[in-house]
Amino acid sequence: VRTAYQGEPGAYSEAAALEFYPKTDLMPCPSFEAVFDAVASGSATAGVLPVENTIGGSIHRNFDLLVEHDLPIVGEVEVAVDHCLLVYPGTTREAIRRVYSHPQGLAQCEAFLKTLTGVELVATYDTAGSAKLVRDGALRDTAAIASHRAADVFGLEVLASGIQDYATNITRFVVIARAPDTNAVGEKTTIVFALPNEPGALYRALGVFAERSIDLTKLESRPIRGRAWEYMFYADLALGRHELKCARALVHLAEFAKWVRTLGSYPKWKDEPKSTQPS
Amino acid sequence: VRTAYQGEPGAYSEAAALEFYPKTDLMPCPSFEAVFDAVASGSATAGVLPVENTIGGSIHRNFDLLVEHDLPIVGEVEVAVDHCLLVYPGTTREAIRRVYSHPQGLAQCEAFLKTLTGVELVATYDTAGSAKLVRDGALRDTAAIASHRAADVFGLEVLASGIQDYATNITRFVVIARAPDTNAVGEKTTIVFALPNEPGALYRALGVFAERSIDLTKLESRPIRGRAWEYMFYADLALGRHELKCARALVHLAEFAKWVRTLGSYPKWKDEPKSTQPS
Repeated sequence: VRTAYQGEPGAYSEAAALEFYPKTDLMPCPSFEAVFDAVASGSATAGVLPVENTIGGSIHRNFDLLVEHDLPIVGEVEVAVDHCLLVYPGTTREAIRRVYSHPQGLAQCEAFLKTLTGVELVATYDTAGSAKLVRDGALRDTAAIASHRAADVFGLEVLASGIQDYATNITRFVVIARAPDTNAVGEKTTIVFALPNEPGALYRALGVFAERSIDLTKLESRPIRGRAWEYMFYADLALGRHELKCARALVHLAEFAKWVRTLGSYPKWKDEPKSTQPS
Repeated sequence: VRTAYQGEPGAYSEAAALEFYPKTDLMPCPSFEAVFDAVASGSATAGVLPVENTIGGSIHRNFDLLVEHDLPIVGEVEVAVDHCLLVYPGTTREAIRRVYSHPQGLAQCEAFLKTLTGVELVATYDTAGSAKLVRDGALRDTAAIASHRAADVFGLEVLASGIQDYATNITRFVVIARAPDTNAVGEKTTIVFALPNEPGALYRALGVFAERSIDLTKLESRPIRGRAWEYMFYADLALGRHELKCARALVHLAEFAKWVRTLGSYPKWKDEPKSTQPS
């Protein structure tokens, strides 16, 4: 197994890949698109993509890419985010004039960052990448917000850890492959659908599932690109596609939806946290 | 009227403020929080905040801030986004080695950016702010993606315009004030609610509106911070709060929702675009 992920070594996506496939080879990629390309071309056997964070919400770009590509979701994995303030060895807190991180990293550590005065916040494309910038430039006045593992990978010092505003900060990733895993038993099914632009259309769509007692663990609307205020919906159903009532519900939905696509049916992550979204 | 907005002069938020209040004084602010603070303290009479873009989706941070503060929405305004590639006067396309913009600006011009080879993309906090960086540093190897107006404000040259991937790229802003405008007639009502974590809860909530033929023009789920995979919902109802069936629907929803908050009831933007979200 070789697993592609977006980011530098030390990224949370890398941790997700190792959590899902403990013995995988790793293939860092510069972008989410490159992860899809690596799996489609066969240069990686799987790809790991963040799709949702308990603080930041859905990562829409990856749902768009899942719809654009034809690579099934074969699994999911959750990783707890534990942000640290990393510096070049020897740098003190007082010497910090700039903090680098992904915009989400900066946003998730707002309260902590307010305790640093006279500091400029610089958005970068990747938490681990910001650690790499500090190391590569031997920057002694700049800190990075990234993981403990990024500190190890880039030889940086951890000045503070657990600096995120909310202790419960979990990112959910999906695992994609070229073909479904025929040995796995689906327990969740991820679908995307668009509805006619009529009052009550979403109510009717949810009725398809509610009337069959199918639990939705996620529902999210997303603008359809290029069409003002038209939306598609992502939903996670709490059952596998092979179950008869799932198949019947999807056929029923297709009767009035503009289109329906199943992105994958896969086992639930074993360490599933406490709660699910009301449906 | 003095209107606070996030960003530098030339920001799309400034255009929204002038669209809504053509004769307003303007108050640029470094952050969305500062816009709320300016309105709460009375140093501005109104604030303009982006809440949704047709490509990028909802700007969750501003919904969170609307829930945290007690400042009513008194209006909405839509602005078409027209991104340009701005450079220090005299810089040629071949000399560009770096492009600065807000991450959304970079994401929305992906196809165009691929035509520039060997160029590094740098995320900044603000489209107009990236134009300011180019001007302040007299950077001759760096371009900014921002509006035409930002080019005028900062004396930059427009090398290319309309460079966004999708022609239909509209941002919707809400206008907040310290108190509701008692002269205005509400035509839309924005609410936020949380539901008990039970299967079918959202279906039941949408039924409250569907049974009364109340159209939802937006529905979005948002994780509740600090609680894994629990969600609240934002919805826009296509009628004013003063209408009896709106009041009845909100009382009905409150019977089983964990909580319901009305963020404001306000006139529809006159140039409302073509379509609304199915409900």
